[in-house]
Amino acid sequence: MDTKKNDIIIDFEPISRRVVFSDDKSLYKILSDLDVPITSICGGLGTCGKCKVLVQRGNEYLNSPTPSERNHLSKEEITNGWHLACQTKFNVKDIELLKTLQPPQFRVFLPSELLLEDFNILVSGISKDVDFHPTIQKIFIEVNKPSLKEPFADFERIKSSLVSKSLNLKKNHEIEIDFDVLNRIPMLLRKNQHKITIVLWNDHKIISCEPGNTTQENFGIAFDIGTTTIVGYLINLNNGKIYAVDSKLNSQTAYGEDLVTRLTYINENEDNLVKLNSLVMNDLNDIIINVCNKANIKPSNIYEATIVGNSVMHHIFLGLNPVNIGLSPFIPVIQKDLNTKAGRLNLNILKSGNVYTSPIIAGFVGADTIGVILSSQIFKEKELTLAIDIGTNGEIIIGNRKILAVGSCAAGSALEGAHISDGMRAAAGAIDKININPNDYEVSYSTIKNKKPIGICGSGLVDVIAEMLKSKIITRSGNFNRELTHHGRFIKKDKSLEFVIAKREDISLDKDITISQNDIRQIQMAKAAFYAGTKIILGNLKSNLKIEQVFLAGAFGNYINANNAKFIGMIPDITDEKIFQIGNAAGIGAQHCLLNNNLRNKARMLLDKIQYIEIAADKSFQKMYAEAMYFPHINLDFFPNLIEYKEIPKR
Amino acid sequence: MDTKKNDIIIDFEPISRRVVFSDDKSLYKILSDLDVPITSICGGLGTCGKCKVLVQRGNEYLNSPTPSERNHLSKEEITNGWHLACQTKFNVKDIELLKTLQPPQFRVFLPSELLLEDFNILVSGISKDVDFHPTIQKIFIEVNKPSLKEPFADFERIKSSLVSKSLNLKKNHEIEIDFDVLNRIPMLLRKNQHKITIVLWNDHKIISCEPGNTTQENFGIAFDIGTTTIVGYLINLNNGKIYAVDSKLNSQTAYGEDLVTRLTYINENEDNLVKLNSLVMNDLNDIIINVCNKANIKPSNIYEATIVGNSVMHHIFLGLNPVNIGLSPFIPVIQKDLNTKAGRLNLNILKSGNVYTSPIIAGFVGADTIGVILSSQIFKEKELTLAIDIGTNGEIIIGNRKILAVGSCAAGSALEGAHISDGMRAAAGAIDKININPNDYEVSYSTIKNKKPIGICGSGLVDVIAEMLKSKIITRSGNFNRELTHHGRFIKKDKSLEFVIAKREDISLDKDITISQNDIRQIQMAKAAFYAGTKIILGNLKSNLKIEQVFLAGAFGNYINANNAKFIGMIPDITDEKIFQIGNAAGIGAQHCLLNNNLRNKARMLLDKIQYIEIAADKSFQKMYAEAMYFPHINLDFFPNLIEYKEIPKR
Repeated sequence: MDTKKNDIIIDFEPISRRVVFSDDKSLYKILSDLDVPITSICGGLGTCGKCKVLVQRGNEYLNSPTPSERNHLSKEEITNGWHLACQTKFNVKDIELLKTLQPPQFRVFLPSELLLEDFNILVSGISKDVDFHPTIQKIFIEVNKPSLKEPFADFERIKSSLVSKSLNLKKNHEIEIDFDVLNRIPMLLRKNQHKITIVLWNDHKIISCEPGNTTQENFGIAFDIGTTTIVGYLINLNNGKIYAVDSKLNSQTAYGEDLVTRLTYINENEDNLVKLNSLVMNDLNDIIINVCNKANIKPSNIYEATIVGNSVMHHIFLGLNPVNIGLSPFIPVIQKDLNTKAGRLNLNILKSGNVYTSPIIAGFVGADTIGVILSSQIFKEKELTLAIDIGTNGEIIIGNRKILAVGSCAAGSALEGAHISDGMRAAAGAIDKININPNDYEVSYSTIKNKKPIGICGSGLVDVIAEMLKSKIITRSGNFNRELTHHGRFIKKDKSLEFVIAKREDISLDKDITISQNDIRQIQMAKAAFYAGTKIILGNLKSNLKIEQVFLAGAFGNYINANNAKFIGMIPDITDEKIFQIGNAAGIGAQHCLLNNNLRNKARMLLDKIQYIEIAADKSFQKMYAEAMYFPHINLDFFPNLIEYKEIPKR
Repeated sequence: MDTKKNDIIIDFEPISRRVVFSDDKSLYKILSDLDVPITSICGGLGTCGKCKVLVQRGNEYLNSPTPSERNHLSKEEITNGWHLACQTKFNVKDIELLKTLQPPQFRVFLPSELLLEDFNILVSGISKDVDFHPTIQKIFIEVNKPSLKEPFADFERIKSSLVSKSLNLKKNHEIEIDFDVLNRIPMLLRKNQHKITIVLWNDHKIISCEPGNTTQENFGIAFDIGTTTIVGYLINLNNGKIYAVDSKLNSQTAYGEDLVTRLTYINENEDNLVKLNSLVMNDLNDIIINVCNKANIKPSNIYEATIVGNSVMHHIFLGLNPVNIGLSPFIPVIQKDLNTKAGRLNLNILKSGNVYTSPIIAGFVGADTIGVILSSQIFKEKELTLAIDIGTNGEIIIGNRKILAVGSCAAGSALEGAHISDGMRAAAGAIDKININPNDYEVSYSTIKNKKPIGICGSGLVDVIAEMLKSKIITRSGNFNRELTHHGRFIKKDKSLEFVIAKREDISLDKDITISQNDIRQIQMAKAAFYAGTKIILGNLKSNLKIEQVFLAGAFGNYINANNAKFIGMIPDITDEKIFQIGNAAGIGAQHCLLNNNLRNKARMLLDKIQYIEIAADKSFQKMYAEAMYFPHINLDFFPNLIEYKEIPKR
């Protein structure tokens, strides 16, 4: 960037981004405008306290702490130069003075938990076998040349060549052609000696015609649009193999990290839906460019995209207004699967290519859940299986070859680090595994990518709760054990006790990484919601059913210590051999829909069969939830194998 | 129009159109730019000689006669101020002089046969009964409101209401919705207490949702796009009645009156297809506005349009390049029927409405022929039936309940007045019926709208040939009978003999209306093509078949004296009771497709069954054609009932 003397410059570190400051914007707005994806739950309203930044130079020219900053930052932090980005502006009256100073006038440090850049995205998973029967077929044909004896139209001659070549074809009459493709065929046939390659969709619709034999270039892309993360898998539709994977933070996070914040944003103004839609389209198109570069193919050789995502992401992707999903009784615009032309949606694969969106089950049980069901094949299991998908929302699926029911609980976000004082996503520097020595309460931990710790991610949080229980640091009701709070691992912060996981002196942050009483409550609430939700669904099915098997899906599900998840009572008490971590099952579901067309019919049939249970509306929910707030449950009889609990105090 | 002093003004009469002349354009170009539809077969190339105009003022400032004008105009005509519009420009060097003269500096008279405005369009016909089963259904529903117990999506609740209301509905799973309509339903439901009207297409696709109960406003429009004339029929889809009819000259005539000229024009430049397409769209949209005004409805209450037209009109309407139809082996882009979204085609009915185009049989046997077949129900006849549709092209259909074959011959245009010195369309002032007294050769005639005669239309031409035969003025070989050419009704023009039909002194033109030897040849060629074509098709079917019944379709078919058509040998020698005039059968076919969806399947099935015979490619065509050039045929045994021929000399 060229800078002139008299410019006011901000350097953002550690990303080495230099910006010319020229307006009365907050730091949060400047970062949003730069397309730097930063953590924010409230979308810049000053209520979540997540957008903490450290101003290393120029502090004296900033506004004094706002009430929101005083609320979310300790005095010490304020003194040290910490600010909330959304609350921080420059004093405009100082502009003339600032211009006389040597640039950069400001240096702002963005902690990595704010930046969310160097994060792990789960792109793989354990996939059950899937039959290979893609919806796209490329067929090379030599079309008969027309004659006065056989003066058939171009399209009709292509049709007969296809019929003579392909076995799966639908009835001759039902072969269709994309209207935009139709006008290109006369020239194409005549310029290529009538030798062309047909791209046939779903055994009946011609969506492209290409010169010569291009059957080798045949690709599809499967997308998993998460609230926070988008993953795309480029798949060769001739052999079913993944040729490239790419992922990206969902740019919509700039407008709120959770769905409710985004729905509020959309409700404010009609244009906001258009804005979020174009953000997600840009993200998807970036991924398309990246995977095409990796595999060295053209985007126009991608003929189909399959999409899974929660209901809100599904709606925003399609440009459908999702606001009624956010209001009781949480109603989507449409549930059924859709096939839409890529050009219509501005998705930059082949313009006349097809975009398949999986069906959604209910307002908060989306196409991603159908993806989990399809890839886990829970509907083929003999044993009654509980599948939980922990993303920004939590979905609970219970089923086997006879029954299938789903529900949703707002339980996931704590397990992704939201509302936890030192919580963060599973990104580099996150503490992901924790051990506590029950004798001296010393803590050992590992971090993602072995970087110096900067926070605790979901699997670390489950570990720390389980370990604190086993060490009797907390009681079954989730309180700090008063007999131990004198121990040196406890510190007092703003009059509250916190248990120190990583000490300030051992790490590069200017603070301890701790677990507070409130953090424990957040995890309790999450695990109680999952357990109570499971119970409610079971109760709606048949009273005497018992979970025999557990699938843990999603990024969190893959990194979690399953034994500890069971120990804190998040999942039922079954043997470890019956707990499976099935990876990013939603994304695998999207891949399977690309690979096997029959699964789309399966999804449609499942939609009729699935029982949707509105968990929060169940009369017994509150009672069950309260009982499940205890570790592992108020009634230890439900967890007979967790004998350690005999020693752990209840309150 | 405001005119300033110093403007050069042309007044066009009798249309009272004043134009400021400001460029070096030909009169033809000026008229084209004015959107005045004028007769031209060659599209302004100077080869057809049809664009004759009379300059009544300003002759001295025009260019001297061009070779083309000397070729097409008699010396007398040139002296009297007649010009060919395409050859006529103003001398630019006179501009300064012209500016000093009193406007209008020019007055140009456009004869009505040039203008083609006051013309008869056949909008009705004898329609066989058609079952009423339209593709469009409007259904008023009260959709269940959502609840936590039944939290189904808006679309799914609409679907269940529909299923409970409609008997004909396809399987629940197959109900679809137009993507653009989908996003409007959440608001529509909630603003109208969940009471809405669904527009359902083909028992499975929702193409519109309207607030409240609007089932009363339910319209479709059937279009017959002829080479020269476009007719639209607005039909109430609740009761099948025609509510309004409107017609318009096809504006494409400005770019050539026949198809070959238009194909040449399209081949010149890629943009020309776009130009002709937008002309026809404007014509159709004008008709839509007119019929809506007549019936006092909104264009958005028209939910479907059906289209018939010859292959070239069909292609131009759809924006498909028709140039290969003009080159042997005359190949269209597509034959099958299409359903296209109105918005995609810029047809101004409901944007998400459906446009159905009938299938076409071959390059020169189009969707209009399917229309004739469907409305005549020739496929239900017991007797072997010949149907001929005489428009700008001639189509021959032979069939009954067992067989069905079609062919096309370039025979129609002479019967529409092209290439005939005083030929014209069936417009006001056209001589449409003629009698010749065999004793004194006096001619009596009638004209359309009883106006003073200005030319002879097709039915008049058939009459005049038959009458000249009966009076022995011409021989069976089509020559003037030398024994009579001394008679006063013969005149000599440019060394050739002409038989006078209407004398100069009896009419308002400054010339006689005559039949020349060449005119007789043109009719001979046309009728020989029809007869030989019929024979060729019969021969391709089975050698011993005989025509037992004749249907005459098209504007010409309706006005023709069927007995005379038989007398000149255009159609086979069968009794008059077995000859039926079935009117604008193509347009009725379009209406029937609107009224009865099953006919579309019928059309699709017929397309498989129909035998297309390329008449001109048949080895025996030239011989049969030559033999049929005689009146009624070289072999009188084929016309045993025409006993008058015993008296008529052969050569």
